Amino acid sequence: MSWNAQISAAATRIAPYILRTPVICAQGFGLPYAIDFKLEQLQHTGTFKARGAFNTLLSGPVPQAGIVAASGGNHGAAVAYAAQKLGHTAHIFVPEMAGPSKIALIERTGAKLTVVTGEYANAAEAAADYEAATGAMQIHAYDAPATVAGQGSCMAEWEAQGLEADTVLIAVGGGGLIAGALGWLAGARRVVAVEPETSCALHAALAQGAPCDVQVSGVAANALGARKIGQICYDLATDHSCESVLVTDAAITAAQKALWQERRLLVEPAGATALAALTSGAYTPAKDERVAVLLCGANIAPDPLP
Amino acid sequence: MSWNAQISAAATRIAPYILRTPVICAQGFGLPYAIDFKLEQLQHTGTFKARGAFNTLLSGPVPQAGIVAASGGNHGAAVAYAAQKLGHTAHIFVPEMAGPSKIALIERTGAKLTVVTGEYANAAEAAADYEAATGAMQIHAYDAPATVAGQGSCMAEWEAQGLEADTVLIAVGGGGLIAGALGWLAGARRVVAVEPETSCALHAALAQGAPCDVQVSGVAANALGARKIGQICYDLATDHSCESVLVTDAAITAAQKALWQERRLLVEPAGATALAALTSGAYTPAKDERVAVLLCGANIAPDPLP
Repeated sequence: MSWNAQISAAATRIAPYILRTPVICAQGFGLPYAIDFKLEQLQHTGTFKARGAFNTLLSGPVPQAGIVAASGGNHGAAVAYAAQKLGHTAHIFVPEMAGPSKIALIERTGAKLTVVTGEYANAAEAAADYEAATGAMQIHAYDAPATVAGQGSCMAEWEAQGLEADTVLIAVGGGGLIAGALGWLAGARRVVAVEPETSCALHAALAQGAPCDVQVSGVAANALGARKIGQICYDLATDHSCESVLVTDAAITAAQKALWQERRLLVEPAGATALAALTSGAYTPAKDERVAVLLCGANIAPDPLP
Repeated sequence: MSWNAQISAAATRIAPYILRTPVICAQGFGLPYAIDFKLEQLQHTGTFKARGAFNTLLSGPVPQAGIVAASGGNHGAAVAYAAQKLGHTAHIFVPEMAGPSKIALIERTGAKLTVVTGEYANAAEAAADYEAATGAMQIHAYDAPATVAGQGSCMAEWEAQGLEADTVLIAVGGGGLIAGALGWLAGARRVVAVEPETSCALHAALAQGAPCDVQVSGVAANALGARKIGQICYDLATDHSCESVLVTDAAITAAQKALWQERRLLVEPAGATALAALTSGAYTPAKDERVAVLLCGANIAPDPLP
C-alpha cells in the first residue's frame, strides 16, 4: 500500500482520538518574512507522538498482556496515553534521566511505570525482558510503518487546513515525523530536515550513504537523540532528496526563547529546533519562497507549573 | 454608529497588525463535554489588548508628543507595542508591583518606561502629569469606544472562524473585552462574565445597580483587578442580560495548571479564569449546550524563559 493510502487510512482511524492542532501565520523572530506554524506541541501528551501510538494500537489486535514501551519520555507518554484511552494496560520503562516532569506526565496517564537505574539502554533491556515474560506488545518510537503513517497524518491535516508553504522545516530525531511528512508529500513540497549538530543521525547517514551510529548530546538530546536514523526515514529522505541542515544548541535555545517571548508558545528545545534553522541562517529561503515550521513538542523541563 | 459597525470597522483597520489567533476544540479538564477555545493569549504582547491599542491609534490623529499610558502591565505592553509598530513614541508608567516579567515585556518594545515607586495610583498620577506637560495622548485600558471596538474584533474573528457555541465564557477585569463581545453578539449567543471572588467589579455593579468601587486582590488581580467596571461594559451587560459568575483563586490556579498539563497552553491566572467557571462548577452548561472559553492572557510570572 502506498504511503499516501496508509497515511489517509491512519488519519481517518485516529481522528476521534487526537487533537486537530491549530495553525497560525506569524511574522517576527527577526526575520523579514512570515512563517506558517503548526502547533503540534498542543497535541495530547505534548508531542505529535500520540498520532503514531494511536495508529499502531488501532491497526491490529492488542494482546491481553497489553503494551510495553521503553522511552526517554515523549514516546512513553504518548503510548501510555493512547493505551489508557483505548482501555489497554501499558507498562512504561524509563531511565532515571527522563527527569521528574516527563515521569509525572507518564504517571498522570495511569500507566504502570518503572524507573530504571542507569541509561536508556537499561530501560530498553528491562522493557525487552518484560515483553518476553508477558507477551506484551512493544511499539517502536519511529521505525515502524504504523508509527510513520500515524505521524504522517500531521502533514495531511496541515494541508487540509490550507497550508500554502513551498517548504516545510521539521526537526529530526529518529525520523518518524519527517518520514510521515515525506511519505505524504511525495515530493510535492520541499522538506528540510533540521537536526542539532550534536544529535544528527540523519545528517550522518546521508553523508555516509547508510544509517550509522552517532554520538548524541546537547539540549534537545532527550527528544531528538536517536543513535541511528530509522531505515524508513532514510529511504524516504534519499528518495525525495530531503535537504538536511544542522543547528547549534545556542541557536535552539535562542529560538525557544523567541517563541515564548514573541508568541507565548512554550516549547521544549526539540520543538524550537526547526525554527532555529531559519533564525540562525542555517536555512535561508529564496525570494518569495514561503516557509512553514512544525512545532513538535512542549514537554519542557523544568515544568513551569508542576 | 452601532457597535456592530464600529467593531467591523475596527477589525478591518487592525487586521494588518494583529495576529489572527487560532481556535481549537478540546475535551478534557475532567468535564464530560468538549470546549471551543480561542487562543487569544498568543496575540502580540500576550493578551487581547493589542487589538484595542491598535484600533485607538489608527482611529485618529496621534500628537507629535506620542502616547502615554499607566498600566499594571498588560495594557502598557500592548500600547507600547502598537505605538512602536506605528512609529509613535510611547511612554509607559508602571508601578513597581508590575514585576520584572511584565516590565521586561514593555522594555522589549523599545518604549520609554518609568517604574514608579508605590502603587498603580502613583503610576496613573505620574502618567497624568506627563500628559499635561507634553500633550501626549492617553489610551484608556477599557472604558473608551475605540478600545471596546478593538477588543470586539476578537469575537468577530472567532465567529468568522466558525464558532458554533451557544455560550461564551469571558474573564472580566475592567470589562473592555466582554463589552466588545457583547456589542458584537448583541444577544445572538449567551455571554457569561467570569470574575475572581476577590476582584469582581462587574458582579458588584450588577448587584448594586450601578458601577461602584470594589476592593481587589488575589492571583489574577494584576490583570483583572479593576476597582470599578467600565460604564460601557456595565451598560452592555445590563442591556443583554449578561450572566455573572464568580470563581475562587484556588479554582483559577487549578484551571491554569490543567491548561498546561493537559493541553500545553501556558496562561496567566486571568487567562484561566473563564475556564475555572466550568471546572469549578460555577457555571454548568445544560444538556447539549455547547460552550466556548476565551483564553485572554499569557503574561505569567515568573517568566519561564526570562
